[in-house]
Amino acid sequence: MAGMLEVAGIDSPLVEVLSTGLTEVERVFFAQLESDLPPVRDLCEQVARYTGKMLRPTMLLLCGLAAHPRAVDCERTPLLERDHFLLAATMEMVHMSTLVHDDVLDEADTRRRGSTVNRLHGNETAVILGDYLISNAYHLCSQTGKTEHALAIAHTTNVVCEGELLQLHHRDDYSLDEATYVEIIDRKTAALIGLSCRLGALASGASQKVAAALDRFGRQLGIAFQIRDDLLDLTGDTELVGKSLGKDIEKGKLTLPIIHHLTACAAEDRGRALDLVEEAEETGDRSRLVAVLRESGAIEYSLAEAGKIVEQARRELEVLPESPARQVLSEVATAVVARAY
Amino acid sequence: MAGMLEVAGIDSPLVEVLSTGLTEVERVFFAQLESDLPPVRDLCEQVARYTGKMLRPTMLLLCGLAAHPRAVDCERTPLLERDHFLLAATMEMVHMSTLVHDDVLDEADTRRRGSTVNRLHGNETAVILGDYLISNAYHLCSQTGKTEHALAIAHTTNVVCEGELLQLHHRDDYSLDEATYVEIIDRKTAALIGLSCRLGALASGASQKVAAALDRFGRQLGIAFQIRDDLLDLTGDTELVGKSLGKDIEKGKLTLPIIHHLTACAAEDRGRALDLVEEAEETGDRSRLVAVLRESGAIEYSLAEAGKIVEQARRELEVLPESPARQVLSEVATAVVARAY
Repeated sequence: MAGMLEVAGIDSPLVEVLSTGLTEVERVFFAQLESDLPPVRDLCEQVARYTGKMLRPTMLLLCGLAAHPRAVDCERTPLLERDHFLLAATMEMVHMSTLVHDDVLDEADTRRRGSTVNRLHGNETAVILGDYLISNAYHLCSQTGKTEHALAIAHTTNVVCEGELLQLHHRDDYSLDEATYVEIIDRKTAALIGLSCRLGALASGASQKVAAALDRFGRQLGIAFQIRDDLLDLTGDTELVGKSLGKDIEKGKLTLPIIHHLTACAAEDRGRALDLVEEAEETGDRSRLVAVLRESGAIEYSLAEAGKIVEQARRELEVLPESPARQVLSEVATAVVARAY
Repeated sequence: MAGMLEVAGIDSPLVEVLSTGLTEVERVFFAQLESDLPPVRDLCEQVARYTGKMLRPTMLLLCGLAAHPRAVDCERTPLLERDHFLLAATMEMVHMSTLVHDDVLDEADTRRRGSTVNRLHGNETAVILGDYLISNAYHLCSQTGKTEHALAIAHTTNVVCEGELLQLHHRDDYSLDEATYVEIIDRKTAALIGLSCRLGALASGASQKVAAALDRFGRQLGIAFQIRDDLLDLTGDTELVGKSLGKDIEKGKLTLPIIHHLTACAAEDRGRALDLVEEAEETGDRSRLVAVLRESGAIEYSLAEAGKIVEQARRELEVLPESPARQVLSEVATAVVARAY
């Protein structure tokens, strides 16, 4: 289980340390979900298939190593402790719960190359299973015995829900501007990645200053990650990505290339662009829209924006001493924008 | 705001104490839901309309008074503190979140005499709003600074979700037995009422023995409450009850009178009874089914069962010294089965 590092093809002696850590995170995750009720057990086994890149636990453990007083020695000395694993498993469980509810909202059929819970068991089961996962996540994080962990996590899940509500509010809003788009993805996606980085640092006894810098690092990384994710939804290959694509347009969610194109194009081209968005929404065929977005440079612009944000993020790492973990954090940041999966 | 006590027509000097306490619970509840995002604020204002009997906060505050070392003086001396109000507001928020998600699952249109969130804003908004409420509930309970509160609450919300999943698993199961029915409602409804009683006692510094007895009291009360609720869904008056009725049959959920009738009737009457259930499911007209259930004594049996369970519950109160609060707890228990709303 090397998660994101393996997917990103990162070559470091830390890969093994991380891999051992993520295996422990998985153990904690599934031990938490054990139930005496067979139908609940069956559903949780299915959720097991959903664990993929483990981006949030990976970031939490990496920040736990990089912000540790003995970070320089992180390849040789075991630095991660129970709180890191509890909190990392919590982050994955919160994320998983949002995936299960998102698939209901998106009416998605495919996730991690398999059928979604809503597809297999109906929307009702998917709604309650999502609730069960979030409930277990809160139970898990309170096992550290520190209410500041639970407070930070619940505060962030508030922000995540607000982001989702804001996104629903702007559905089919063809005048959505870039700032609002960034606010939505900052809340919906980036806040949880930022929190993962912060909790990793705090569990290693880092100062508030370091924890805040790593929160900003994770948050910017998260924004870049979501811009990339939205690009994949538009231009990606379902086979390669392993989940239903084209959902944003289908659900009336405008993403960066389209927002940029609609803002930047000449007034007389705006109507044509909106027609192509509508065509993609109705027929599911995004090829003509994508061709126009490529031609106008809107896709390139979006990738460049993601790249710039990752550059900003990387600067936050300067708060840390040099260490193998800091190096890997920097490489993960690059991989987040470069990925095609 | 006298909540359940007013609805139940209880006459005690404690009504005023409770009313003041519930007003503070409401203040904490809405302060927690304040958001800087206008669309989120609008949705939360709508949720405000949902607060009704405040059964769970009422039970928590009453148990807080009855289990207090100075319980005998509870009409004259203010005994309730910050933790009681935080935890009572948490219980109401957890409950509210299950209502919002239940209305999605039940495709219900009416709640507290108004339109449901799913009816007004669609299922997607209702799913996320439910998530937002549960997230805020966990944030609220961690503000007591004691992880044992959050652990107990998250453990109970796990049990509630398991109850809902078990119920979905048994949808359209016409051989559902009484024991499984009771297990479902014990988890789905009673666990949260039991927890409310326990938390009230703990926040007053009661012993684990007293807290456990009050948990059992609340749990039995909750089972009786749900049997009554299910009877109202079958035989009640929408105008009087103020929410969509007939949802159980429509959604293939068997409840006590039907389970009892199917088990107790002669083999040759079983087919006829199942036909009437099907008729009610298809046409929404429950009158012929209800007539048979009345005639066979199944409705009377269910009411008597609820009465017996309340009697058992009341015996748990003997762990407490005599006090005005203990007296009111006993009266609330009676009212739960007697209500027609």
